[in-house]
Amino acid sequence: MTSSYVPGLEGVVASQTAISMVDGENGRLVYQGYVIADLAEEMSFEEVAFLLWEGRLPNRSELDALSLELTNHRALTQAANVTLDALPMDTDPMDVLRSVVSVQSVEHKLAKPTVPLAIHATASFPTILAMFFRRQNGLAPIKPRAELGHAANYLYMMNGKEASPDIVRALNTYLVLLADHGMNASTFTARVIASTESDLGSSLVGAIGALKGPAHGGAPSAVIEQLEIIGAADDAEKHMREMRRRKEKFMGFGHRVYRVYDPRAKILKEMCRRMNPKFYQLAERVEEIALRILHEEHPERPQSTNVEFYSAGVLQAIGLPKEYFTPTFAAARVAGWSAHVLEQAGHNRIIRPQSEYIGPEPRKPIPLGERS
Amino acid sequence: MTSSYVPGLEGVVASQTAISMVDGENGRLVYQGYVIADLAEEMSFEEVAFLLWEGRLPNRSELDALSLELTNHRALTQAANVTLDALPMDTDPMDVLRSVVSVQSVEHKLAKPTVPLAIHATASFPTILAMFFRRQNGLAPIKPRAELGHAANYLYMMNGKEASPDIVRALNTYLVLLADHGMNASTFTARVIASTESDLGSSLVGAIGALKGPAHGGAPSAVIEQLEIIGAADDAEKHMREMRRRKEKFMGFGHRVYRVYDPRAKILKEMCRRMNPKFYQLAERVEEIALRILHEEHPERPQSTNVEFYSAGVLQAIGLPKEYFTPTFAAARVAGWSAHVLEQAGHNRIIRPQSEYIGPEPRKPIPLGERS
Repeated sequence: MTSSYVPGLEGVVASQTAISMVDGENGRLVYQGYVIADLAEEMSFEEVAFLLWEGRLPNRSELDALSLELTNHRALTQAANVTLDALPMDTDPMDVLRSVVSVQSVEHKLAKPTVPLAIHATASFPTILAMFFRRQNGLAPIKPRAELGHAANYLYMMNGKEASPDIVRALNTYLVLLADHGMNASTFTARVIASTESDLGSSLVGAIGALKGPAHGGAPSAVIEQLEIIGAADDAEKHMREMRRRKEKFMGFGHRVYRVYDPRAKILKEMCRRMNPKFYQLAERVEEIALRILHEEHPERPQSTNVEFYSAGVLQAIGLPKEYFTPTFAAARVAGWSAHVLEQAGHNRIIRPQSEYIGPEPRKPIPLGERS
Repeated sequence: MTSSYVPGLEGVVASQTAISMVDGENGRLVYQGYVIADLAEEMSFEEVAFLLWEGRLPNRSELDALSLELTNHRALTQAANVTLDALPMDTDPMDVLRSVVSVQSVEHKLAKPTVPLAIHATASFPTILAMFFRRQNGLAPIKPRAELGHAANYLYMMNGKEASPDIVRALNTYLVLLADHGMNASTFTARVIASTESDLGSSLVGAIGALKGPAHGGAPSAVIEQLEIIGAADDAEKHMREMRRRKEKFMGFGHRVYRVYDPRAKILKEMCRRMNPKFYQLAERVEEIALRILHEEHPERPQSTNVEFYSAGVLQAIGLPKEYFTPTFAAARVAGWSAHVLEQAGHNRIIRPQSEYIGPEPRKPIPLGERS
């Protein structure tokens, strides 16, 4: 009945899903039957979110209805506004998101996850982030505009002015690329929570907490920080070999699934080249050296640049501060998380693995007065 | 490399743990080498929490130090107080807990899970619940008393007066019995989140969301509601056979692990008999009929009363309103959750299973204007 311990559940299939496929052998990411390269620069985030939730692309009137529903739910509840304003000014924006999403989704009676609830949650993430960013900078909050799309509204609420079409398009592509990625620690968290028949808000709050971890989504700002330390392309190799002697990790490399170049990293790299030449010049050199050093150390391991490496350059070019890189990842992934919650709730079985006890054999406790 | 799909991860060992063992064959629950029956009525919740965190029972001075640390951290942060007061009055107390614990644990910079952080979180749960309960009832919050233990302070902050020693002892036993239970959906959630190297607060907030689900911890109030519907012992069998004809589930029965009587249910049943004779009279009869009907339907399945069935009667006798049954479960389990987070963080590997794609084969997207 019970299998042996599988560290990290590596290779264990925990869910069947129609939402996305990470084809690590061929370097393909598929959303509901569409290859990411066909969606990334052609589709709006709204279309892709619809695809993830409904399993098909929307027609014009469905897309208009979705846009309207998003528009109608960008505002925060009163309790969420009060919470956001009460948090210490230096709070990690991931903790802001976790807390305000929790307050925004409180309910009187347990509700089943639905597509409208997924839309409402997705609508709220950029509002929360933009409002907190402005508060940190002593600026009044900006109301969203009904005629702007999801990516455009995020930047508008952050900056108080409309971003250029190129910048909006870049953020939209980023949101599409990061919207889902098969099973991963945060999506799995959301599905485990949903499997207890809990609500969508609880699943999303758990997923935000998992994404925060540096071993999952919490590392893209570390890419920028490492590049700043490396400093210049000419000195890069010397610095990087010293880093490895000190056993430091290269940020933005390695993935448990991809055996070839991550298809998202490929698109983001090209965007970086166009949008952020300063970052690109150093990053491309660092990538080449990192892959070479990692290959020298472990020739047997497939080495690949992961999505976080060039994400950092794209998000920097979009003008987002590095503390908002991981929260912006969350603003993309909420579409996928909620799709997985809907799928899990649709044909549910509680996710409850076993543990193997490795503690002491049972013995009688010593009374308090006699313990040394 | 990849195993086949295991629905619900049933039988898959996801973690090794020294914290607790659920010995389903023999009906034993073991905490760090002590059988629950030896702890439940002898030890304070504080001693058991120390045991779960540190792997051994405290001596007198360690226990005093732990009590002092709890006393010093029962108060909420300013942001947590503001959030608690801003939530709608009819909010599900599990959502209050999820939100206020999230706000209480916000941080500027990612902190590693530690025992002091586990103590601080554990200290805060009763405060949050008691403050919200009093607010719902139009009553001013009550400050905890330094000379009272954890269970006594919870009841004191709820009711504004000290509970009798019998009632305090009963709540203490309940907290000890529910403090940990091997792997389960909420503990697993906490460990998955911790495995990304995220913080303790994120893990606890995720675990609260998972416990909320009716398939996990969200059902004890349903036991009371079902008994109220069944009404009286004399009519119970007739009612219950009708319920089964309508395919209704009996609340408080069945468990994936125990093949014999749940050792916690055994202790709680005896407490119920002493403390809540009215509940007990009906509950005992309903239990007997439920087990008989379930056995008639599935003679091959081991049927057992689970911990929620008699928990309901004990918590009712303690004077807690039924909306606070699951949150009180959380106030016990926070000790176990945080112990598992500490253990996971100590020798970590990201928990990242696989999914199996069952969506359509990749095809080219149809442009928006051409979609029907």
